[in-house]
Amino acid sequence: MTDTPDFSFDLLATDGAARRGRVVTGRGPIDTPAFMPVGTAGTVKGMLPEQVAATGAQILLGNAYHLMLRPGAERVAEFGGLHRFMNWDGPILTDSGGYQVLSLTDLRKLDENGVTFRSHIDGSYWEMTPESSVEIQRLLDADITMVFDECPPYPCEEDEAKRSLDLTLRWAERSKAAFENRPGYGLFGIVQGGVHDHLREESARRLVEMGFHGYAVGGLAVGEPAAERNHTLEVTTPVLPTDRPRYLMGVGKPVDLVDAVERGIDMFDCVLPTRSGRRGLAFTWGGDLKLTNARFRDDHEPLDPNSSCPASRDYSKGYLHHLFRSGELLGWVLLTWHNLHFYQELMAAMRAAVEEGRFADFAAAFRERQAKPKQAGA
Amino acid sequence: MTDTPDFSFDLLATDGAARRGRVVTGRGPIDTPAFMPVGTAGTVKGMLPEQVAATGAQILLGNAYHLMLRPGAERVAEFGGLHRFMNWDGPILTDSGGYQVLSLTDLRKLDENGVTFRSHIDGSYWEMTPESSVEIQRLLDADITMVFDECPPYPCEEDEAKRSLDLTLRWAERSKAAFENRPGYGLFGIVQGGVHDHLREESARRLVEMGFHGYAVGGLAVGEPAAERNHTLEVTTPVLPTDRPRYLMGVGKPVDLVDAVERGIDMFDCVLPTRSGRRGLAFTWGGDLKLTNARFRDDHEPLDPNSSCPASRDYSKGYLHHLFRSGELLGWVLLTWHNLHFYQELMAAMRAAVEEGRFADFAAAFRERQAKPKQAGA
Ligand SMILES: [Zn+2]
Ligand SMILES: [Zn+2]
Repeated sequence: MTDTPDFSFDLLATDGAARRGRVVTGRGPIDTPAFMPVGTAGTVKGMLPEQVAATGAQILLGNAYHLMLRPGAERVAEFGGLHRFMNWDGPILTDSGGYQVLSLTDLRKLDENGVTFRSHIDGSYWEMTPESSVEIQRLLDADITMVFDECPPYPCEEDEAKRSLDLTLRWAERSKAAFENRPGYGLFGIVQGGVHDHLREESARRLVEMGFHGYAVGGLAVGEPAAERNHTLEVTTPVLPTDRPRYLMGVGKPVDLVDAVERGIDMFDCVLPTRSGRRGLAFTWGGDLKLTNARFRDDHEPLDPNSSCPASRDYSKGYLHHLFRSGELLGWVLLTWHNLHFYQELMAAMRAAVEEGRFADFAAAFRERQAKPKQAGA
Repeated sequence: MTDTPDFSFDLLATDGAARRGRVVTGRGPIDTPAFMPVGTAGTVKGMLPEQVAATGAQILLGNAYHLMLRPGAERVAEFGGLHRFMNWDGPILTDSGGYQVLSLTDLRKLDENGVTFRSHIDGSYWEMTPESSVEIQRLLDADITMVFDECPPYPCEEDEAKRSLDLTLRWAERSKAAFENRPGYGLFGIVQGGVHDHLREESARRLVEMGFHGYAVGGLAVGEPAAERNHTLEVTTPVLPTDRPRYLMGVGKPVDLVDAVERGIDMFDCVLPTRSGRRGLAFTWGGDLKLTNARFRDDHEPLDPNSSCPASRDYSKGYLHHLFRSGELLGWVLLTWHNLHFYQELMAAMRAAVEEGRFADFAAAFRERQAKPKQAGA
């Protein structure tokens, strides 16, 4: 008999709408606000799992769509699940594939049942339904399964947004019916509705009526202005229950995370720290640094001499500049590592600010430092 | 006042022509036979310095040519030398640039004074002489400086090999005159002479008369058959003094290292473990494995479950196959790491075999395992 705890969420502190909490999963806790590094195809690009864990990350994101196509969900199951396959023993949340199917594939056909499409890898034909997506996520052994949803493009007319929303809600019901409840595992619904307030409210309300272990806000980070995204969060999170985690999908820049925590969001994922790291962009407390810029050539200082992260502390900006100019792999590795560590530092700082009731001050100071004018020559 | 020891070599044991020794440098000892991972441009591609050290490597190789062009030797000096620049505090040997100038550049002109050439990076004009090469290596703070030499192509007619040899010997004299003796630092001469026995003997004898801290065998690993290389080593190493380290440049495959140690070589460098790692080839005690091969898709076993190396032990061959099929950076990182660790394991095994007087048995068993027929489907 096991002692696996039920999937749950403890709300530990609030400060305005900002929340400090803890998600409990069968593979360990997730302190929120939390950032989930993206490991699309069973790896956080260029990072060893132990390096990712050392940044403070407690949960990774994987993609049902990518892993279904390669190496295949059944194959991952035969390897003992995604955790054993990729050597990560903490919790994993998997994206349902809905977003990827609609953004990455050709010749897709969407109907009530699901989506048929061609693989972006080899052109083979596939079908994905709420039931098959949940089954794939079960084979991967995802700790958090996402319902299969349709993410409409931005901008989107209201009648189209409403049609999509209704379909997504029917798919959410089917996803929930297909999900096998197991101790320590959770299923999240996804709020859609574009930037139409009443549709967001309706979507959130109907999902809450169905009942999920957590609620994601989807359909953002698709090109909308930050003010519109923030407004959408403001009308959405009050509808969601306080005792369930809230996950803003695909967001974002450091200031975007602060904006969203301020509006009651608990969980995030984004490719930005990893992808930007491979492109020579470092996120820091003082703002972004483009390390390929010539002004860093003779910079003898590390990104952060006081950091606990070797990538931030042990290599000068001039050396990082050299690695990027030379096209050296180690540059990608070090800057990915640094950025992931910075994102975790930011989440830890936000958790502390909520606990200590000073989130508004923290957010104001953070925005000011992030926006400071670049140095001469930048 | 410092306690920096003089650069020296202790011959600890012999077994036939095979030697077990220790090079002493100002930045620590090098147990021989030793393999030096290649860090051409100030990084062992894709590897953190602490990962390289964890494989057992005690010394790295850098390249005067590459670092001169980018980021520039003076710049590296301003960063505190190559060790601080790249965050590696063990000894570093630098290639003099002779080989790279002649193999990588266009429009080169070679005369008595040196070589003028155009950079392979930006087409800029440069001149390299014995004196400038030694100065660049001093700016990099190389623990072991290599004389500037001409490496003739293979095959090479005897008269051309003789002309090249005489020039290289004059350059060796000039390199020695330019080298500033400092405690803990060493200068190595380079034996040339193609595959002409009497030229090799003459080259070695005249270098020994000049006197160097160590002797390299150059001009091999350029396409010659293994038997010819081995024969060349057999006529060369007996001419070299027993109390100086011997370095075979640019070699090679695991069995090549065993062949060369059997013939009295102490030090090696080669891009093979790193470059092959990026191409999906794993070196193992049982021979090479091409991990992109479909037969590894469902292989649940790691490369070596008993290894102390995480890359060899913690990831299945099926997962590595997936990473390479998906073009994932982590595949390059893990297989580079595994291969470097395997090379260090091989060197440690050879050191033990010499110490215990069983090198011939070790070599025979190793060759047999490396040559074993591939499994069905390979
Ligand atoms: Zn509306
Ligand atoms: Zn001859």
